[in-house]
Amino acid sequence: MIVGFQGEPGAFSEEAATTLFGEIEARGFLTFDALVEAVDDGTLPLGLHPCENSIHGPVTRAYDLLYAHPNVRIVDETVHRIVQTLIGVPGAQLNEIRRIESHPVALEQCRRFLRSLHDVEVVPVADTAGAVREVLRVGYRSRAAIGPAASARRYGGTILADAVQDEAENYTRFFAIAREGAPRRRLGRAVLAFVLQHQPGSLHTALGVFAERGLNLRALVARPLPGRPFEYIFYAELDCPDEPQARSVMSEVGAETRLLGWY
Amino acid sequence: MIVGFQGEPGAFSEEAATTLFGEIEARGFLTFDALVEAVDDGTLPLGLHPCENSIHGPVTRAYDLLYAHPNVRIVDETVHRIVQTLIGVPGAQLNEIRRIESHPVALEQCRRFLRSLHDVEVVPVADTAGAVREVLRVGYRSRAAIGPAASARRYGGTILADAVQDEAENYTRFFAIAREGAPRRRLGRAVLAFVLQHQPGSLHTALGVFAERGLNLRALVARPLPGRPFEYIFYAELDCPDEPQARSVMSEVGAETRLLGWY
Repeated sequence: MIVGFQGEPGAFSEEAATTLFGEIEARGFLTFDALVEAVDDGTLPLGLHPCENSIHGPVTRAYDLLYAHPNVRIVDETVHRIVQTLIGVPGAQLNEIRRIESHPVALEQCRRFLRSLHDVEVVPVADTAGAVREVLRVGYRSRAAIGPAASARRYGGTILADAVQDEAENYTRFFAIAREGAPRRRLGRAVLAFVLQHQPGSLHTALGVFAERGLNLRALVARPLPGRPFEYIFYAELDCPDEPQARSVMSEVGAETRLLGWY
Repeated sequence: MIVGFQGEPGAFSEEAATTLFGEIEARGFLTFDALVEAVDDGTLPLGLHPCENSIHGPVTRAYDLLYAHPNVRIVDETVHRIVQTLIGVPGAQLNEIRRIESHPVALEQCRRFLRSLHDVEVVPVADTAGAVREVLRVGYRSRAAIGPAASARRYGGTILADAVQDEAENYTRFFAIAREGAPRRRLGRAVLAFVLQHQPGSLHTALGVFAERGLNLRALVARPLPGRPFEYIFYAELDCPDEPQARSVMSEVGAETRLLGWY
């Protein structure tokens, strides 16, 4: 089974893909855009895209890209526990480190740890596992990266500090995405996109469609509507046992709606 | 009038502060955390913090920091038009550029322009105006930065490409923040934070409190609740003509609520 994700080998996304699908042939993509485009054009059968972190909040690019690619559907989801580690070259000591690099989200998750250090430059880079690979390739004892323990094992690094994230409980939720018509899981979840008239009570009315059916709203994300400043597309994730109900809810919410996935 | 903001001289935040307050004594802070802490401890009377961009969406750190600093209040707001420009050393040409740096949000806003270039490394850094200053200090013809035209004027750079953001209409909204008790404008706006029980219809019920009074919901942001994975704090921004009404709405929404500002 071929599964794509954003990042380099050893990334959290690859860990999550292996947990969800078992033995996979992993395909790393440089950007989320390239990942979703590969699913859209049929060259990649299945992709894994983070959609939310329990500390950092929604990964808004996931919603924006799903909206921009109407042929791509959410077919499954999984929650993966994130443990950030500080990784340096073999033999390095924590007090030697003068530069730490990682993905901005990983750095954000380790705010307290980073603030506890002195004389350390913090550098945002494109990828956690890529940062680990690069630090180990360059080989300076003064440089370290924050990333998955799996990437330390893969690239031969030393863990200088374990579990350096602010919150012990740190989870990332991922959407599995595929082209329309691909097999789906049947967890009983629906993801809807909708645009509302800008008037008092419009969101309340829309949420009433879910509430009167007793459908639990698991997540609600508001994103800017391209070209219409300070108007929004709402993304609602619902517990919704069957697909026909998801479609009927959608048609009742309004004209500008789309079902990004029922799975 | 002393006004603080995140960033270096020439930043969009400084442009916005000047538009809102006229002649100011500008104080740049390295991070948003340092800015809000200076307001909280009384060393800075007034700060300007971006809260939303019309393309990128909410600046979630603004809400997280306001929640973490209960003595800090929103006292005013302003919307500032953002025009991103590509700035290089005097005499440089666009086709010579091999490295472009800027703040990640600015890079995100210029996605299409950056994708149209070839053989260019894109490097996220801490600050737009700081990126411009650094590129001009180093002086390589092959390096450029994306930032405000004001920063090109301030640091003596050349604009290689004007208005490089994806959307011509690009606005950032800012909160003015001060300690509780400081003077406020009276625009008739309220910003509430509230935590809901995780059950079907709870958000619908809360929004009903606003809807039944005819109060327009201008923005709704959901942020992770620290230490409680996949539970949320909601931030609601309302048109609300008077402060007593804001307080009565707040008490009706539920127990875990806070008024971050009425102005």
